[in-house]
Amino acid sequence: MSIRPLDGPARRFEELLGPRSVITDPVRLRTYECDGLTHHRVTPGVVVLPDTAEQVAGVVRICNEHDLPFVARGAGTGLSGGALPRSDGVLIVTAKMRRILSIDLPNRRATVEPGVTNLAITEAVRGLGFYYAPDPSSQQVCTIGGNVAENSGGAHCLKYGFTVNHVLGLEIVTPDGYIVELSESGPGYDLLGAFVGSEGTLGIATKVTVRLSRAPETVTTLLAAFEDVERGGRAVSAIIGGGIVPAAIEMMDALAVEAAEAAVACAYPEGAGAVLIVELDGPAEEVAHQFGEVTRLCREAGAFELRVADDPERRAAIWKGRKSAFAAVGRISPAYIVQDGVVPRTALPGVLASIDRLSHEYGIRVANVFHAGDGNLHPLVLFDDAEPGAAERAELVSGRILDLCIEHGGSITGEHGVGVDKARYMPKMFSADDLDTMQLVRCAFDPRGLSNPGKVFPTPRLCGEAPGVRRGAHPLVEAGLAEQF
Amino acid sequence: MSIRPLDGPARRFEELLGPRSVITDPVRLRTYECDGLTHHRVTPGVVVLPDTAEQVAGVVRICNEHDLPFVARGAGTGLSGGALPRSDGVLIVTAKMRRILSIDLPNRRATVEPGVTNLAITEAVRGLGFYYAPDPSSQQVCTIGGNVAENSGGAHCLKYGFTVNHVLGLEIVTPDGYIVELSESGPGYDLLGAFVGSEGTLGIATKVTVRLSRAPETVTTLLAAFEDVERGGRAVSAIIGGGIVPAAIEMMDALAVEAAEAAVACAYPEGAGAVLIVELDGPAEEVAHQFGEVTRLCREAGAFELRVADDPERRAAIWKGRKSAFAAVGRISPAYIVQDGVVPRTALPGVLASIDRLSHEYGIRVANVFHAGDGNLHPLVLFDDAEPGAAERAELVSGRILDLCIEHGGSITGEHGVGVDKARYMPKMFSADDLDTMQLVRCAFDPRGLSNPGKVFPTPRLCGEAPGVRRGAHPLVEAGLAEQF
Repeated sequence: MSIRPLDGPARRFEELLGPRSVITDPVRLRTYECDGLTHHRVTPGVVVLPDTAEQVAGVVRICNEHDLPFVARGAGTGLSGGALPRSDGVLIVTAKMRRILSIDLPNRRATVEPGVTNLAITEAVRGLGFYYAPDPSSQQVCTIGGNVAENSGGAHCLKYGFTVNHVLGLEIVTPDGYIVELSESGPGYDLLGAFVGSEGTLGIATKVTVRLSRAPETVTTLLAAFEDVERGGRAVSAIIGGGIVPAAIEMMDALAVEAAEAAVACAYPEGAGAVLIVELDGPAEEVAHQFGEVTRLCREAGAFELRVADDPERRAAIWKGRKSAFAAVGRISPAYIVQDGVVPRTALPGVLASIDRLSHEYGIRVANVFHAGDGNLHPLVLFDDAEPGAAERAELVSGRILDLCIEHGGSITGEHGVGVDKARYMPKMFSADDLDTMQLVRCAFDPRGLSNPGKVFPTPRLCGEAPGVRRGAHPLVEAGLAEQF
Repeated sequence: MSIRPLDGPARRFEELLGPRSVITDPVRLRTYECDGLTHHRVTPGVVVLPDTAEQVAGVVRICNEHDLPFVARGAGTGLSGGALPRSDGVLIVTAKMRRILSIDLPNRRATVEPGVTNLAITEAVRGLGFYYAPDPSSQQVCTIGGNVAENSGGAHCLKYGFTVNHVLGLEIVTPDGYIVELSESGPGYDLLGAFVGSEGTLGIATKVTVRLSRAPETVTTLLAAFEDVERGGRAVSAIIGGGIVPAAIEMMDALAVEAAEAAVACAYPEGAGAVLIVELDGPAEEVAHQFGEVTRLCREAGAFELRVADDPERRAAIWKGRKSAFAAVGRISPAYIVQDGVVPRTALPGVLASIDRLSHEYGIRVANVFHAGDGNLHPLVLFDDAEPGAAERAELVSGRILDLCIEHGGSITGEHGVGVDKARYMPKMFSADDLDTMQLVRCAFDPRGLSNPGKVFPTPRLCGEAPGVRRGAHPLVEAGLAEQF
């Protein structure tokens, strides 16, 4: 058997973690070759499964000594390739770090290890009337560490905010192997906010303190069927414009409904060109009042059927179609690309019409599933990978949709992250100076560029340029204005 | 007349801004010698009043060329000395940058220049049913730029959050003179969150985009009088524990009430050992329901008098005493120190009892005014500066109060910032590694240490150490564990 370049570090990992927590067998390594962005696959050089923050720090220090890139991975459900491994590096899997360390109900917080699943936090406190609010569709399996890396959202983030709004403190291992605490409030820089959503480029979370939210007194879910997306969009505008902030407002177009129907037989109203799911929660009186308003506004916008669910089973029936929508398109299309653009809510109708035009122009079907309340689109771009040129056309449509979002003052990602998938779009959204400022922070944390390199930023940069000359010539010099001073 | 070291740069500022926007006259410079932390005074070397972001950038670049420290100043109402000038540097005053640039009601946001006052934003949209939520007591005069620097709070941040929760985007001038945009959501690092509350050490905000909140349908304010602080505290616990999140819960102790009475004759109930102000807002039904609950819980906790205000005038009467409390202590004491510690809500009773013991031990009166809902204490430490040793004893008590907050897992500042006032307490709250990590970010933005130096961090540091050796010897080496690897 030949000696591989990672054999030396692998032996040191085994000394540190024990042999059972280090994977070097090529067949077993294949298990980790991709996350939810399945069309990017790389077999990792070595996989390690540390048990403690100190072990994570030890692994990271060994990586620094050997100049090995490393990537952290939770459950691997991410949709932008943030956990795509490096063949020349180390994949640090948090699967063994899944202890709930403390639950402090009087101060409404829980501290957990990064491998704990999103839903496990809610399950630990459900009987006590609390829950953990952010709810990505993958919440049964995705880990809180991954949620922190990607600043995950979910259907209810319209009212309750994203992961960053629910993380109160972190313990992290920095890219050079130090264990550091980041806290939400109080003095100093809010590096917690910068770390959440940094997609593994600023280090690895080893403890996460989250806010526990009180379960609402009442939850009512409404399904409204419209002839078309435009009428559904009008209902959304009327609801938000009326000062109501529902816990969730989700919209699915005809193709998305068709897919969900084929997969889980959700029995949504027949002939619907758009289905709107509106969830209201809060004190009973408030929900009752808002419910009356929402039904009235939906009817005025042209809803031809309304269904109401105020018990858990019926609510689950309504959500079933929506939650399975992504997986469901597999039933009506051999392959698809999920996009994750954001537009200002007021730009939604125009952008949806443009997506429809693109779809016809390129002969590529697009199913739209989206968080309508906050303008977060999830167009599913469908194609047959057996058809020559179809994948390329789908990529084109997908890119054009992101261009549309940027043109309308929106964003290339709402909740799935940049990862490897959208790094090339970053310069369309940010100026060179904006990106350079982010790189300064990246270099401050990770001067050697070992922590999840190749993700988020379009071009890897060398850190350690002399301070003060970060962007080459001074812009005033370039503009010929230097004499003015 | 002698030539002063800043004469050269001052001439260049005059060329850039015009002579009327540069102040070098010693008498006029004295106007800017302190902010709200009045016992620290330094006359600035030069004061400039730029009109645009480009001018701010130009001033900062000139500072870089001449290696001059610079400090930004809004209205100078800060309470931790964040805008304390440098005698060897430049004070950049944003008073001329007070344009409201855009109001976008459909997307609920406004973009303003940094010199716009907090209240001016609300006044611009009040007739349209909107307002800007964070409400520091100084909101009539303090600027949004200063609010961003200090991450200002206010009585209503229990329910609505701090400045950081209401700023959606920033344009900043970096410490090396580049104009950069920071945005809240979307891809890349959330440097917006790190910038808000960085107290001028990461640059100067030149445009601020804020969230406009919808004015609540109903607001009801309740004043409850208790025999002592302990009973008042019990009411607070019962309200929060009952799942009610009031817009504000403020508590004042007997001495604070006495001071307010002397200053503004607010006519609070006689004989009150503690006064609680609870404000409820939201839909009418919800407020009515919560009002019933809150009055019941206050009575159960021992309230001997309850007053209700549901119109603006009566509400103003109740708030009058609270809002004037800081200034009011001037009526009952020649001098005082305002503290700004935070403790977990559950630790409030114990900490208040300890403050009482300290007060007796040192013979120093302490008036307590605090945001009870989020455990943010504002002890006013009273002393007579004419009495020998009294100022020192007051400083000691003040420091011991911060120690108490740290011991109870709290923070040395809730909303006033660290500034020059509390920099020496930072090492009590953060480990060396935690502080080093903040310094890495500081150095990334400001390698020359020119942007508000001497604030926030206890010891100024030289940036530009070789990457990877930021903390001297590797901790594993120090611990003798290096052979393990």
